[in-house]
Amino acid sequence: MVRVAILGATGYTALELIKLLLRHPEVEITTLTSRQEGSPHIGAVHPSLWGRLDLKLEERSPAAVTARADCVFSCLPHGVTASLVPQLLEGKVKVIDFSADYRLDDNATFEQWYGEKHPDAGRLGKVVYGLPELFREEIVKAQLVANPGCYPTSAILPLAPLVKAGLIETSDIIVDSKSGVSGAGRVPKLTTHFPECNESVSAYNVGRHRHTPEIEQIVRRGAGKEIQIVFTPHLIPMDRGILTTTYSKPVGNVTEPQLLSALREFYADEPFVRVVEHLPGTKDTTDTNFCDMTVRLVQGRVVTISCLDNMIKGASGAAVQNLNLLFGFPETTALL
Amino acid sequence: MVRVAILGATGYTALELIKLLLRHPEVEITTLTSRQEGSPHIGAVHPSLWGRLDLKLEERSPAAVTARADCVFSCLPHGVTASLVPQLLEGKVKVIDFSADYRLDDNATFEQWYGEKHPDAGRLGKVVYGLPELFREEIVKAQLVANPGCYPTSAILPLAPLVKAGLIETSDIIVDSKSGVSGAGRVPKLTTHFPECNESVSAYNVGRHRHTPEIEQIVRRGAGKEIQIVFTPHLIPMDRGILTTTYSKPVGNVTEPQLLSALREFYADEPFVRVVEHLPGTKDTTDTNFCDMTVRLVQGRVVTISCLDNMIKGASGAAVQNLNLLFGFPETTALL
Amino acid sequence: MVRVAILGATGYTALELIKLLLRHPEVEITTLTSRQEGSPHIGAVHPSLWGRLDLKLEERSPAAVTARADCVFSCLPHGVTASLVPQLLEGKVKVIDFSADYRLDDNATFEQWYGEKHPDAGRLGKVVYGLPELFREEIVKAQLVANPGCYPTSAILPLAPLVKAGLIETSDIIVDSKSGVSGAGRVPKLTTHFPECNESVSAYNVGRHRHTPEIEQIVRRGAGKEIQIVFTPHLIPMDRGILTTTYSKPVGNVTEPQLLSALREFYADEPFVRVVEHLPGTKDTTDTNFCDMTVRLVQGRVVTISCLDNMIKGASGAAVQNLNLLFGFPETTALL
Amino acid sequence: MVRVAILGATGYTALELIKLLLRHPEVEITTLTSRQEGSPHIGAVHPSLWGRLDLKLEERSPAAVTARADCVFSCLPHGVTASLVPQLLEGKVKVIDFSADYRLDDNATFEQWYGEKHPDAGRLGKVVYGLPELFREEIVKAQLVANPGCYPTSAILPLAPLVKAGLIETSDIIVDSKSGVSGAGRVPKLTTHFPECNESVSAYNVGRHRHTPEIEQIVRRGAGKEIQIVFTPHLIPMDRGILTTTYSKPVGNVTEPQLLSALREFYADEPFVRVVEHLPGTKDTTDTNFCDMTVRLVQGRVVTISCLDNMIKGASGAAVQNLNLLFGFPETTALL
Repeated sequence: MVRVAILGATGYTALELIKLLLRHPEVEITTLTSRQEGSPHIGAVHPSLWGRLDLKLEERSPAAVTARADCVFSCLPHGVTASLVPQLLEGKVKVIDFSADYRLDDNATFEQWYGEKHPDAGRLGKVVYGLPELFREEIVKAQLVANPGCYPTSAILPLAPLVKAGLIETSDIIVDSKSGVSGAGRVPKLTTHFPECNESVSAYNVGRHRHTPEIEQIVRRGAGKEIQIVFTPHLIPMDRGILTTTYSKPVGNVTEPQLLSALREFYADEPFVRVVEHLPGTKDTTDTNFCDMTVRLVQGRVVTISCLDNMIKGASGAAVQNLNLLFGFPETTALL
Repeated sequence: MVRVAILGATGYTALELIKLLLRHPEVEITTLTSRQEGSPHIGAVHPSLWGRLDLKLEERSPAAVTARADCVFSCLPHGVTASLVPQLLEGKVKVIDFSADYRLDDNATFEQWYGEKHPDAGRLGKVVYGLPELFREEIVKAQLVANPGCYPTSAILPLAPLVKAGLIETSDIIVDSKSGVSGAGRVPKLTTHFPECNESVSAYNVGRHRHTPEIEQIVRRGAGKEIQIVFTPHLIPMDRGILTTTYSKPVGNVTEPQLLSALREFYADEPFVRVVEHLPGTKDTTDTNFCDMTVRLVQGRVVTISCLDNMIKGASGAAVQNLNLLFGFPETTALL
Repeated sequence: MVRVAILGATGYTALELIKLLLRHPEVEITTLTSRQEGSPHIGAVHPSLWGRLDLKLEERSPAAVTARADCVFSCLPHGVTASLVPQLLEGKVKVIDFSADYRLDDNATFEQWYGEKHPDAGRLGKVVYGLPELFREEIVKAQLVANPGCYPTSAILPLAPLVKAGLIETSDIIVDSKSGVSGAGRVPKLTTHFPECNESVSAYNVGRHRHTPEIEQIVRRGAGKEIQIVFTPHLIPMDRGILTTTYSKPVGNVTEPQLLSALREFYADEPFVRVVEHLPGTKDTTDTNFCDMTVRLVQGRVVTISCLDNMIKGASGAAVQNLNLLFGFPETTALL
Repeated sequence: MVRVAILGATGYTALELIKLLLRHPEVEITTLTSRQEGSPHIGAVHPSLWGRLDLKLEERSPAAVTARADCVFSCLPHGVTASLVPQLLEGKVKVIDFSADYRLDDNATFEQWYGEKHPDAGRLGKVVYGLPELFREEIVKAQLVANPGCYPTSAILPLAPLVKAGLIETSDIIVDSKSGVSGAGRVPKLTTHFPECNESVSAYNVGRHRHTPEIEQIVRRGAGKEIQIVFTPHLIPMDRGILTTTYSKPVGNVTEPQLLSALREFYADEPFVRVVEHLPGTKDTTDTNFCDMTVRLVQGRVVTISCLDNMIKGASGAAVQNLNLLFGFPETTALL
């Protein structure tokens, strides 16, 4: 059994992670940390877990965590994780980090977008980006995995194969994403107060969402050259799900069937990517680890439509997929 | 023109009140108060009002308010209003109070349910309950009106005529209400955080919701004897609307047509109560000042179904109806 | 491996059943029937199943079904199942019926509420009601199981223990239920058209919902005497979940702790009933086979609050629970 | 008083139109047509109108309609209106057509996108496009007005000023729109069945939505040259509202303040367009005739965000605005 600790266990990604891990036959959750007052039982924080996991939230040092875990999932906020990771890695555990702390290769880009100094900048560029469909081999050998952002996964999965196959121009890519509200986290704010965001759709962080450089970085690797993305996230009145529509220019006389074939071939052996001909909706992937996608050629523009559950394939499901790779379990364990 | 001031203008009831008053040909809004830092423009707080009302939120004393107003709507929290009302009334203005401060006749009941001393207890029992369908004559002559609670309006309107006509027993009345989330106000809380309350229904404050004594008090007046209500509010994943289902015992061999007739006769001349034969849904009354209702006799039980928009007939529309009565305008002005 | 056939596989309960069975290690789905034109692939009907189950919808006779199955789940409409069941049972398969055809013991009651002659009336009264918490021993030995209705499960589970323990009066029980829209099935109708039912709550079938006699029948068994229920279902703008609030009179001086203890003791060993002290919301049980419940004593009335996922514990999860009992698998298999 | 007839009065646009006209002091609704069996009362079809308008739905010939009306609103489906318009116009009434029949100038384009012959093709190119912000002077003089589509209004309003001012390239414009479900009409379909579209977002009619040539045609007029739009509509789980995000290339070194100023100047005197600096959400415009918009310059791309209520500014509000222009009433009558 792999002993698992989850840091920052009060949030939604931790909740989904716990639900998935409770189905995993080779995993035992031993530790949940949080700075919640009074060390409440996890079932008191998340009533859906009532009676399902007999653990309290504790405040524990990295050393006290690694003493009880083989794998640590960090659901802590950006900046916090990177201040703990060095100690966690000394403890010989494997670490899967949900934050953005180790996703970017470049310290300058990190500082530009996150507006702060990186607490462990020396490690940047050496951490694997935990998207199994692109980096499975590196993940298998890693000790630390940077679990991808939800928007980036939804955008990179359709774009990377097309860029790599040279079928779309890399100079001018638009990513228009629509996300459910759970992506905003569990801390109440006016923007996610039900009477404010229900029955409304709005764009936010236009031109300055931190997932922009993450998408650019990974798509760039396949392109082998500079890339620029215009990324606009929108808040949709639903719990979960991301639908991403990308617009790019085809290279030469590429046809719609060629585009579709490129996606199909790239993902032929992938258990969690479904290339379909119909237009997928987020509900097709709700509560699953699937990313559904298709592609259309419209008036001389390549349009991809992709969707996933931001809490599963966009966060906790991807994390379990990474755990399976790190510990040699079948990749789909607990995920189908 | 009636000059209007609104105290506590950042909340949802104030927003709806402003929207209604902007349609009122005899009203000019002169003053909006709030303790918001920086005195923001109302359009910055409620973007839907952008460009529609050129006023800033100000922090003003009661005297400074009454100097600019003929009618003051107080959307302040319980307890706060009653500490200001004596000064407001000295200013010769008419006051319509959205809080519960003056709804209950009895100080002991107030202290029992609100858990605090009433700042102006001497006035309790002398303030008209602003439900025009029951107390129109008193409202017309009043200086201070206690605007009814949203749940009470939805429950009292169907129950009062049946009690008064002696058609139902008063000893055993159940009120099961379902409300949209706007009723919980504009301050973000975990219970009204979108991913928590969306796609969920739950009961809250079972047996201890403060609207219980308010319903009892008003229904009792028609009954002429003691009354006891079991009231259970439920939170429904929608912006606005209350549907209230009541259960009571018929007196003698009363029939369903008799029950329906009693409601129809009682409300025959009322512009905002629609007694219907079909089962009404809250959407039939959304954004209107109507209360729709019907009644059924089921297995020896009288079941009433009533609905209204908690923000309009349950709050701001009723308040405008009261303003119309106080100042001698046609009662439906700005409300149809 | 238990070979499973699902009759009427285009609806929502069948969809949920398939999702659950895909996680069941001892089950193989061999047959899906439907009268859909063109025998489409199940993934074309339910895109969420795309690539997960390689079966087409077929039109097959009972004999052709039983030749390929050890267990048949019928998701066919009321009336249709009972015309096929005799032939299915001859085929030696076990049958779990989602329809109401075999839930009622009494033919007269069936004809009164369903308005038609029962095609297999002789079997009424001999079929086990598939609620494991109450009838586990009979289910284990059965060949045919009448899978309970969603509303009845939500009402019977809190009421049965209190009735059986003699803690509440049986003469006067009110059941006020709130259900998500999936309970209305997959055939588009005006009442379930998004712009009609979204942002609205309404009661329907007041006094004449067919689940009324089903609740009465099962609660009566524990009571040992006649019982009468007033049942009012409400449509709530959410996908799934039922919250049921019941009101009844306590017997003698029973206290709230006694009521809670009665529920706790009754369900002490049940894996899927969680008796809690907080007020549960439907979201606590979404996508699970749990029924959460609590009880309060309010103004001399016993109020129970219970909730479940109408598609899981209210339909397909209960059916899998029954399959586990029928075939000797651990009862929680595929359900946690 | 202007006597008004509404053809096809069972749909949602007719419902909203009626609600608006009930507030119009110079309008009397005299006639509602429909082919509904039994000539039901309008209040039986739309319960929200119960008691507010005492008219039945009738089946009437164009001549019988014009005998009772000065202004006819046609809410009939595409193709049907154009078969009646010639007769209506003979009747000397003014006609405001909600369908797309007279929006396109060019018969070939109509046939290409609507796949049928136009019943009144000779009139194409001579009918004013009823967007007051662009064509007010022509509307004032018209007898027949083609009321704009909801998506086109949301896209044209932000694009037209930028194109006209030469601030954006016309060769490469992307329009990504997000719409509430009411836009799909009142006839129940699987795609708008609550459990299908709730909690989901999907794209539809990618590359072949009929509003594409309408947007192109109107934007082209300002550009003075050919234009090509990639238009992708998305279905959002909310009742009403459209948010449109457009992406285009700036001309030369245009700055964000210049873009914003261009919008502000263009709409300086418009009562229903609000150019704002914040990112608007559809809820800011719900139940109003406003279109809110802003513009950003992101990574060398011009991004506009605009929103409106698809039922009001996108349909019935615009129609009332046109009525006000046609009959010489203040343009904002019944709309603020």
